[in-house]
Amino acid sequence: MEWMSVDLGNCPLIRALDVVGKQWTIIVLREAFNGVRRFEDFQHHLGLSRSVLSRRLAEMVTDGLLERVPYRPDGERERHEYQPTDKAWALYPVMVGLMQWGDRYLADGDAEPVRLVDRHSGKAVVAALVTDDTATCAPADVGVRPGRSFKTVPAAPSDHGACGDGR
Amino acid sequence: MEWMSVDLGNCPLIRALDVVGKQWTIIVLREAFNGVRRFEDFQHHLGLSRSVLSRRLAEMVTDGLLERVPYRPDGERERHEYQPTDKAWALYPVMVGLMQWGDRYLADGDAEPVRLVDRHSGKAVVAALVTDDTATCAPADVGVRPGRSFKTVPAAPSDHGACGDGR
Repeated sequence: MEWMSVDLGNCPLIRALDVVGKQWTIIVLREAFNGVRRFEDFQHHLGLSRSVLSRRLAEMVTDGLLERVPYRPDGERERHEYQPTDKAWALYPVMVGLMQWGDRYLADGDAEPVRLVDRHSGKAVVAALVTDDTATCAPADVGVRPGRSFKTVPAAPSDHGACGDGR
Repeated sequence: MEWMSVDLGNCPLIRALDVVGKQWTIIVLREAFNGVRRFEDFQHHLGLSRSVLSRRLAEMVTDGLLERVPYRPDGERERHEYQPTDKAWALYPVMVGLMQWGDRYLADGDAEPVRLVDRHSGKAVVAALVTDDTATCAPADVGVRPGRSFKTVPAAPSDHGACGDGR
């Protein structure tokens, strides 16, 4: 099979990039994977205007990456939160791979704000290629821990954002 | 550890996206990972103008993803080919993960133009999260084979582009 003769018209990589090729899609997924669900929490942690964030979340709902789910806080009007779909969670290894690549090659002395561990064994978790009979870590198996260059900012509007407990 | 209090200023994911967030970077890497090295072969397979391709390849050399290496075909003037660096190969699992996600969720009845196998065992290769003591497949272990929706186009200018023999 000669690569140069492969027709690229149905390349799944190009299809994937059409959906997740926007940088902010990956950034919003990072928040959702780490347990952020509420509009105000996305807004606070990402520092976006309401209108920009609304548009981005709506696009991700359209693309099937987030699901808008109603909830009603005690004594308040109904609100909505944004839950990552299975389609979004399937991108978790890609996001981890990008994060670990950034830490390895671009950190500039400031590497590893967070590190990932297997909740059961405590071993480090890495994104890699394996044969399909290999034991892998599901998102729910992965815990996020402070890394070597962990830093904090003032607390968020709601205290419902848990780290590494996205699923 | 509360995710909402994590300072995002040194996020390695954002650093990674600053380098590989451009769609065409991933597309050029796809070609390089599949053995394309020569300017004319990139140009033919991607259908780009010389000026656009020159600019893109030069940016990727600056970013440390490609190395420009001289060679001299018999009886011709010296030319250069573009070899992926170790930094680029470290993105191979990310690219495979994106490709497999596109096949799974966006294929629209046209899934799997190519499939990846372990050259030694013949088993399917997947991008996944694993603990760091797991046996993984290096890029050189991965073979590219025609998949269910494989299609070809007319042969390329040079016959040096091998499929799945990028490393």
